[in-house]
Amino acid sequence: MAFSSALRSGRRLSGLASWMSSGSSRGRVCVPPILITQQRNQSSSSKIKVDFDQSTGVAVMHMQSPPVNSLSLDFLTEFCISLEKLEMDKGCRGLIITSSQPKVFSAGLDILEMYGKSPERCGEFWKAVQEMWLKLYGSDMVTIAAINGSSPAGGCLLSLVCDYRIMADNPRYSIGLNETLLGIVAPFWFKDTLQNIVGYRNTDISLQLGLLYKPSDALKIGLVDQLVPEDQILTTATQTMSKWLAIPEHARQITKSMMRQSTIDKLRSNREADIQNFVSFITKESIQKSLRMYMEMLKQKKA
Amino acid sequence: MAFSSALRSGRRLSGLASWMSSGSSRGRVCVPPILITQQRNQSSSSKIKVDFDQSTGVAVMHMQSPPVNSLSLDFLTEFCISLEKLEMDKGCRGLIITSSQPKVFSAGLDILEMYGKSPERCGEFWKAVQEMWLKLYGSDMVTIAAINGSSPAGGCLLSLVCDYRIMADNPRYSIGLNETLLGIVAPFWFKDTLQNIVGYRNTDISLQLGLLYKPSDALKIGLVDQLVPEDQILTTATQTMSKWLAIPEHARQITKSMMRQSTIDKLRSNREADIQNFVSFITKESIQKSLRMYMEMLKQKKA
Amino acid sequence: MAFSSALRSGRRLSGLASWMSSGSSRGRVCVPPILITQQRNQSSSSKIKVDFDQSTGVAVMHMQSPPVNSLSLDFLTEFCISLEKLEMDKGCRGLIITSSQPKVFSAGLDILEMYGKSPERCGEFWKAVQEMWLKLYGSDMVTIAAINGSSPAGGCLLSLVCDYRIMADNPRYSIGLNETLLGIVAPFWFKDTLQNIVGYRNTDISLQLGLLYKPSDALKIGLVDQLVPEDQILTTATQTMSKWLAIPEHARQITKSMMRQSTIDKLRSNREADIQNFVSFITKESIQKSLRMYMEMLKQKKA
Repeated sequence: MAFSSALRSGRRLSGLASWMSSGSSRGRVCVPPILITQQRNQSSSSKIKVDFDQSTGVAVMHMQSPPVNSLSLDFLTEFCISLEKLEMDKGCRGLIITSSQPKVFSAGLDILEMYGKSPERCGEFWKAVQEMWLKLYGSDMVTIAAINGSSPAGGCLLSLVCDYRIMADNPRYSIGLNETLLGIVAPFWFKDTLQNIVGYRNTDISLQLGLLYKPSDALKIGLVDQLVPEDQILTTATQTMSKWLAIPEHARQITKSMMRQSTIDKLRSNREADIQNFVSFITKESIQKSLRMYMEMLKQKKA
Repeated sequence: MAFSSALRSGRRLSGLASWMSSGSSRGRVCVPPILITQQRNQSSSSKIKVDFDQSTGVAVMHMQSPPVNSLSLDFLTEFCISLEKLEMDKGCRGLIITSSQPKVFSAGLDILEMYGKSPERCGEFWKAVQEMWLKLYGSDMVTIAAINGSSPAGGCLLSLVCDYRIMADNPRYSIGLNETLLGIVAPFWFKDTLQNIVGYRNTDISLQLGLLYKPSDALKIGLVDQLVPEDQILTTATQTMSKWLAIPEHARQITKSMMRQSTIDKLRSNREADIQNFVSFITKESIQKSLRMYMEMLKQKKA
Repeated sequence: MAFSSALRSGRRLSGLASWMSSGSSRGRVCVPPILITQQRNQSSSSKIKVDFDQSTGVAVMHMQSPPVNSLSLDFLTEFCISLEKLEMDKGCRGLIITSSQPKVFSAGLDILEMYGKSPERCGEFWKAVQEMWLKLYGSDMVTIAAINGSSPAGGCLLSLVCDYRIMADNPRYSIGLNETLLGIVAPFWFKDTLQNIVGYRNTDISLQLGLLYKPSDALKIGLVDQLVPEDQILTTATQTMSKWLAIPEHARQITKSMMRQSTIDKLRSNREADIQNFVSFITKESIQKSLRMYMEMLKQKKA
């Protein structure tokens, strides 16, 4: 099975480091400083760019928050507002989510939102993560993730709540819920989402070991549905979308809701407790220490 | 994974049409008119023929309702009476279900029972569908589906409630819960039955897209257990049955019941609500319109 | 799928017999009488030998109860005491379970504990089986089964509750929950444990038919995680363990608990009813007769 080979090669540890170094080395090496500044300005004004084609009813959401599309409170807020707008537009029937940042789809939850913050602020952040999950997992639209880069932790989750996952077939990229490796724990609804896709046992191993899978291994366990060369990822996503949109819409929506409802209800009815649980865990001194060490390791990688 | 290739080839749409055209072209082209008449008379008197071999304890149920073994109210009533008789006969320990109609196992629920009928009649029909499912899924007998033709929607369901599925290895045949393509929705207990066999993710994709699988793809996801050349299907089913019947019977029955009980209980405790749900959905004007268009498409295919 | 080939070859029946004959032929043919005596003395004083390496934090539990590590009440009691000791030792973080008996990991529940015993004694025995399951499945330690021989029924269960299973790649060995073949029924928590690993459908077929899988088939359905040559099994288990122990411990433990909790709670809240259920089933005259016939068949094999 894929995880045993992943385990043997020890890829999960190097994988974790690789999306970070690739995220940073890209900034350091390939892009002139002036461009970085421009990019960041652009990013601070708008972390998400939406292209909506009224003729096809398909929106493409480009995540463009340098350097690695971290899911900060600002990012999540903008994400949810964009999603709501599209959801309310009757003409919008399909959503493709992709990244404008090279080599990374999304690096997941922004560690800065979890380190050295007040319990209130941590709670607000977590509520925004829940909101993103609830809105996207329960969306009536067809949702396709065009995963054109690495996608660890919350980045992986973002793709898991979509209806279909197409990943760039680049062995340098990796994907998985690797929270355990950071000393933190994927909550039950991350777990439920993953389990709905890859089953109990793959989830058990994935979460206990914090595994990151390279694309070919992700395909084997069904974590992604399809691999394509990176330059064909949007074309393929668009073609796939048109097939999904050919399905009678009302019947598809009811069916999607039937499949996801119990998983969604579980979070809805435990939302406050889940926030309390997160806040009390993340503000523990030992966990804060882990996060600090982790960030220092990242800084050394960049230096 | 199998569904992505099924998706790419667009087989689900052509597959849906193919069992229809094959059902009709058979009548038009290959069989002399006199034979058709005889067949239909025979069929009107008895839609199901049961051969019970007392020496082996195995009954073979031949579905013989031309042209495509549609699950009408009459068919379902006769099916359940036959099943009850076998169930009460202590000597009958195994049941093989197969089709006497060429190229089709069963085309599923009879659309004529859902179009232009009173709510009362629709409710009566749906109750009979539930009854068939409850009786067969909860049967103490070993049940094997010998799928010697296409098996869409309710025809697929009929095979899913058996203990084991052997399908004819003919790429022209297809199988799957493709209700969504007709603009209708597979109810939760169709979904549960499929999910018990192929898991959550395959069910999600199958139902959202209304996929029909050719035999080799059905085998890949475990929708059927075994493929054999069409002329060996009954021999193989009989041999498989004798292996199942060699298992200590009481222990096997308790085990089967333990595996299926929670799924059965879920329908039993929601039976009335499920009927109401079906009736209010199927009698909607928009759904009736979908069904009418669908039947007109079928007529044009036959013409 | 693996089970259809297993079914076709009729391996489950021969497999069941093979660990028995191998267990006995070893005693009769290969080992001088004096050695058997020594071994048995050693075994009577201690059915389990624990080697704990404080430098690595890893304990290896050698099951050494001749001839086939049957799970008797005495064995289970000693097993649980050993496990508790390790669990309380903060320095012990990983547990490898293996067998000192040739050709067999464990033959499962000791039939002598179920035959001709009082209801009270049967209840006491069953409580000990539950205890073993609860302690091992809920363990905070990383647990790896090094399956160096056949592992039917309760022996298979013992490996299923571990975090990871490495099996000797010897086609003469087999593994599976084959209770049905003995005319008895795997209880719901055996079923839940198996289903968590191989999914619903594989569990359905496995339990209904009492299938024993040879190692390569067990690997295919995920019943074991890895196959290695028999002489490398402990080395591989030790290497795998060191990778698991490199994962942040607290996060891994919480994750493990999240994955297993609902399955554990289900037995905890039904423990008494499950004991009553076992006792009333196993003390039935018909079941006692099955067990007697089974033991006579074993005796004839040995003779």
